[in-house]
Amino acid sequence: MKEIKKDSNQEIILGINPAKEIIRLRPHTVKQLIINIDKSSRRINELNLLAESMSIQISEVEKSFFSQNYPNENHQGVAVLCNKRSHESEDLLDNILNQENIFLLILDHMTDPHNVGACMRSAAAAEVDAIVVPKDRSCHLTPTVRKISSGASELIPFIVVTNLSRSIRKISSAGVKVYGAKSDGTIKHTDADMRGNVAIVIGSEDKGLKELTAKTCNALISIEMPGNIDSLNASVTAGIILFEYLRQNKHAF
Amino acid sequence: MKEIKKDSNQEIILGINPAKEIIRLRPHTVKQLIINIDKSSRRINELNLLAESMSIQISEVEKSFFSQNYPNENHQGVAVLCNKRSHESEDLLDNILNQENIFLLILDHMTDPHNVGACMRSAAAAEVDAIVVPKDRSCHLTPTVRKISSGASELIPFIVVTNLSRSIRKISSAGVKVYGAKSDGTIKHTDADMRGNVAIVIGSEDKGLKELTAKTCNALISIEMPGNIDSLNASVTAGIILFEYLRQNKHAF
Repeated sequence: MKEIKKDSNQEIILGINPAKEIIRLRPHTVKQLIINIDKSSRRINELNLLAESMSIQISEVEKSFFSQNYPNENHQGVAVLCNKRSHESEDLLDNILNQENIFLLILDHMTDPHNVGACMRSAAAAEVDAIVVPKDRSCHLTPTVRKISSGASELIPFIVVTNLSRSIRKISSAGVKVYGAKSDGTIKHTDADMRGNVAIVIGSEDKGLKELTAKTCNALISIEMPGNIDSLNASVTAGIILFEYLRQNKHAF
Repeated sequence: MKEIKKDSNQEIILGINPAKEIIRLRPHTVKQLIINIDKSSRRINELNLLAESMSIQISEVEKSFFSQNYPNENHQGVAVLCNKRSHESEDLLDNILNQENIFLLILDHMTDPHNVGACMRSAAAAEVDAIVVPKDRSCHLTPTVRKISSGASELIPFIVVTNLSRSIRKISSAGVKVYGAKSDGTIKHTDADMRGNVAIVIGSEDKGLKELTAKTCNALISIEMPGNIDSLNASVTAGIILFEYLRQNKHAF
């Protein structure tokens, strides 16, 4: 088996954990589980059993299938052929803004799928209601994002909006405190009041928050750093602030 | 100019910030600054001036140099040709253990250069004394790590040890609290006492802490998560715990 045939609405996601979560949470979207016949481990056996219990077709392939098609990827000898993951429309944002205890993560034109994937994983761990990203010049739900998120992409709504500043103003008007992370933000992230409805905005890898985005936030917060470094990796910044929210909202879980 | 000739002890590092930090902090190791002639920005102009002030040779190249040699990399039209960054020997660890206020980050067989680079950046921001990694089956100071760390790799000593468990026992014997991050750790990371001398141990991307490493730690801590996710990205875990240390040791900076 040299290659997997896929329709235009399908894609291949690599890795044990992403495969497990996609099969567990979206079994109806999975066409095939592909496994390296030479690999055997407790986790792969469990995955096999899970796929069988969901009546999903399992294809056993030679090691060369992975080494030829995915030479530089950490595939762990496992792939799923499944439907592309579609993002959510802005209507979902309106629904969320009518709920209580709103907690959102907004990514302002982030482009690196490693960062977006790691942000999704932290967001799912922190149980945000949704991730919000702009339609243009922004990384969406690619196969790499689904892989790096280690299954988290299947758990968290991913809302794509046409005009990010307009959406941030709408979120703010709904009584949500919108905090933008910026290295020269005037409030320390540990001093910002994160109780109640909160949205965290994280800028892009290269340029941080856009000027217009920064103006639209209710306040700009910074992570105080003793070292001689301007800023952290974008997904690390997101993780630190999301878990500061959790620390302040302990009663909530 | 199709390719840059380099000696076996040299390497090429891509990106504006890594180039800036390498020129700023290790000018004697830099052989050449390579810049895309079509690119112009405030940051690139500043980099040019910095290199000139250090009498570093500047080569202006066509756009095609970067697109041909580094098609899938975020090079920003900038590269430096410089000496490989050598790691430190175990002797430096002995020196650090004789100091006061010891703060170490230990990476237990981490293999992804994106994670190691992001960890270095957080470690430099949090001003750890050094990063400690094992000699075998572990990612060291590769060009990708130096690039992803965004210059932080030039600031923080990177100590490679032969036997990680033995080194952890030595660190612990010197009066340092060694906390291993593990998803089933019994102490919440915000409840662990991080005042004073502390070492944080982060496991590998796939397998977390090794069993022997976990046994050697003084205590195992976990980041409490409300969401339906087992674990965070390794560099996000490191960032959250390093900045929890800073939160608890506010007086220190």
